[in-house]
Amino acid sequence: MTERLVVVGGDAAGMSAASQARRRRGPDDLEIVAFERGRHASYSACGIPYFIAGDVTDVDRLVARHPQTFREVQTIDVHLRHEAVAIDLDRRAVQVRALDGGDERWEPFDELMIATGATPIRPPLPGADAAGIHGVQTLDDGVFLRELVRDTKPSNAVVVGGGYIGLEMAEALHRRGIDVTLVERGPHPMSTLDPDMGALVTDALRNIGVTVHEAERVTGFETSDGHVRAVATVVREIPADLVILGLGVRPNVSLAADAGVPIGPSGGIAVDRRMLTGAPGVWAAGDCVESFHRVSRRPVVFALGTHANKQGRVAGINIGGGYATFPGVVGTAVSKICEFEVARTGLTEVDAATAGFRFVTATVDSTTRARYFPGTSPIRIKVLAEQRSGRLLGAQIIGKEGAAKRIDVLATALWKEMTVDELLNIDLSYAPPFAPVWDPVLIAARKAWEAVEAAH
Amino acid sequence: MTERLVVVGGDAAGMSAASQARRRRGPDDLEIVAFERGRHASYSACGIPYFIAGDVTDVDRLVARHPQTFREVQTIDVHLRHEAVAIDLDRRAVQVRALDGGDERWEPFDELMIATGATPIRPPLPGADAAGIHGVQTLDDGVFLRELVRDTKPSNAVVVGGGYIGLEMAEALHRRGIDVTLVERGPHPMSTLDPDMGALVTDALRNIGVTVHEAERVTGFETSDGHVRAVATVVREIPADLVILGLGVRPNVSLAADAGVPIGPSGGIAVDRRMLTGAPGVWAAGDCVESFHRVSRRPVVFALGTHANKQGRVAGINIGGGYATFPGVVGTAVSKICEFEVARTGLTEVDAATAGFRFVTATVDSTTRARYFPGTSPIRIKVLAEQRSGRLLGAQIIGKEGAAKRIDVLATALWKEMTVDELLNIDLSYAPPFAPVWDPVLIAARKAWEAVEAAH
Repeated sequence: MTERLVVVGGDAAGMSAASQARRRRGPDDLEIVAFERGRHASYSACGIPYFIAGDVTDVDRLVARHPQTFREVQTIDVHLRHEAVAIDLDRRAVQVRALDGGDERWEPFDELMIATGATPIRPPLPGADAAGIHGVQTLDDGVFLRELVRDTKPSNAVVVGGGYIGLEMAEALHRRGIDVTLVERGPHPMSTLDPDMGALVTDALRNIGVTVHEAERVTGFETSDGHVRAVATVVREIPADLVILGLGVRPNVSLAADAGVPIGPSGGIAVDRRMLTGAPGVWAAGDCVESFHRVSRRPVVFALGTHANKQGRVAGINIGGGYATFPGVVGTAVSKICEFEVARTGLTEVDAATAGFRFVTATVDSTTRARYFPGTSPIRIKVLAEQRSGRLLGAQIIGKEGAAKRIDVLATALWKEMTVDELLNIDLSYAPPFAPVWDPVLIAARKAWEAVEAAH
Repeated sequence: MTERLVVVGGDAAGMSAASQARRRRGPDDLEIVAFERGRHASYSACGIPYFIAGDVTDVDRLVARHPQTFREVQTIDVHLRHEAVAIDLDRRAVQVRALDGGDERWEPFDELMIATGATPIRPPLPGADAAGIHGVQTLDDGVFLRELVRDTKPSNAVVVGGGYIGLEMAEALHRRGIDVTLVERGPHPMSTLDPDMGALVTDALRNIGVTVHEAERVTGFETSDGHVRAVATVVREIPADLVILGLGVRPNVSLAADAGVPIGPSGGIAVDRRMLTGAPGVWAAGDCVESFHRVSRRPVVFALGTHANKQGRVAGINIGGGYATFPGVVGTAVSKICEFEVARTGLTEVDAATAGFRFVTATVDSTTRARYFPGTSPIRIKVLAEQRSGRLLGAQIIGKEGAAKRIDVLATALWKEMTVDELLNIDLSYAPPFAPVWDPVLIAARKAWEAVEAAH
């Protein structure tokens, strides 16, 4: 008898799961139906800042696969502008609302895939719901903002919060000729870096002409006729035709939670290694779930497209009758901010202290190529290692072209719980166009190991 | 009582050892004297092709540290143009010849560091010793060749052998306006890659205008007045004012071997983990020693500056009374050939078969950035994995800007004996300017794992 898989959320996690399930089970064995609230499915949300900046001109370039392709090639039925509003685990059905028609219906399932994503955090402040205050999460957000920037030509934009999206949007809007101010509550934007590294990002933003106010709390939004006109902080009022929320995102779990699907301590949907939730036959993946952090050993929520794709694949293989597990994360992230490439993996100093580690740090300045090779540029690497064992705990990189992707070596080393002593001798590639004879990653490991030895 | 360390060979390995020993033992405890046959110490031999091409204009840029700096800063006495001609292990002394003065003397030692490097292989063919036939190994070679190219303006150059130096020199001479022909005995230049990957390198060379003859054996050199005039192969005669030997290098072990220091099965000086040879108090490092290959588990000779630096450091720490070990290599190498970045690590198909592995391969084409991101370019990755276990055995990468350094993730994974199943889910950095949402390395691992599963 044909079973039925209902997928709630048609972006990376949901559609990866659907595709993998289909690879293993044909349409006669498994009917697959997906419901997506937005106007697009299967797109690159991470590309939105570059679409708004104009690096990517056609929105269609951000769409990995269209609904008709899913239908024709894989017999996966994707319904856009359909929102799931309730799950009944006993009746094994999802209540779906057609956003354009208004009608609601119950869709039965044997297997359910929850991929509801995340929503930008909106601060509980006066005026926060005014027009002109936008998060950047879905492709619909991206299209809306691009049209807004083109048609209304805002002259002043304020970005509230210096997370990755906030910083990328600050740069994108600045490049669009808008006067941009970034307000960050913490000591530096990009709080996922230690302050000594994050300070370089602040400098880069200021260098291109973005105004940055650090350690400054937003207290509310001034509005006129329902539209934002200024952002109020503890020390000033900043004119704003447009406000971008860069405070991070929160997993969309209410649909699951209301149905009785267990939520984990981090606030994301709890899943096992195969991406099965606490409810039989109900799977979840992507920005709405929590992941195991392999260094801190704690559940965390990280909204990242690459995790969503991997987790969706794992869920889909298992739904399809195969076996796959998602092994967790080590907190790797990378971004390009102005002239800088910025990357991190593992724990920062605050993270490491919170997790109870006693650690040493080492920061080195080196170059991306041999010092004498044309095009060489500075790279700074910071490494954290456990003081007793020398075990690598985290790393951060800032540099120019060719700097940031080197974080992947450190992420791999973290994954395998390497010590900095072991790391400093590994056989990384060397030739003058690619690295100094001592690769910067190895120099950083060597200095960290010297700090470990000095502490003994 | 002050001990005495004599270092034979003043480049990367020798001077790294000297520096590390000095960090741990002051001049009153350890006198350090180094003898270098050439006119330069402590330089980047890997930079020579770029010096000849003109990317690096001043030879001094290739020198990491001058003898007077060693003398003044570290009290290390470096004698250039001094060749060690014999070692007497019983008398514990090295016979040294001053190449410019001609006198010989015996230099006593308590500890001896052998860092005699390697020499380009010269084929045993008629005319092979003629003027105009050059290896490229020392900085003296580089300076000589650069002057030759500038002063005598050769019109035809033949590169015999398509190893890394051969290929880099072919491109460098071509860029100098010289008509270059490369003759390779094997099916493709760059035999450290599998033929399917190496073929792309051949194409790139031909695209810039280098003539490449593959699967063609050189039979001799035509000379006139003692100078090379042409290269003879089994099928043709190629005019040549200048011949570059690109057949690889051979470790310089005769000094050690003649003294009774044991040589290993690979032809390099045998050393233990601390870089101690089979003779008490005699250490060795760099191109003259053999290393343990962690994947094939065989001793190998790899002439690479990065190994020389690491091994020299290890030897120097031990000479200085500390403890350090060199853990071996996994065969990582990288080069830039014309428009391509080329990298490899671990075993090729031939290597893997020779080592007795049954394996699968997977080759994927992806991009260095998100497909929609400006500046994205193609990258091809080939992965070898053991058929039974899925253990990663080797990888090769060809691509443009930003492609090759990704080999380091695979080198690190090889180092830790990861399976491709484990590798395909690791937390590598993702953002549109740096990778597609599935990093090319992870896609390659995924395809290799699918090949492993399909073979079961």
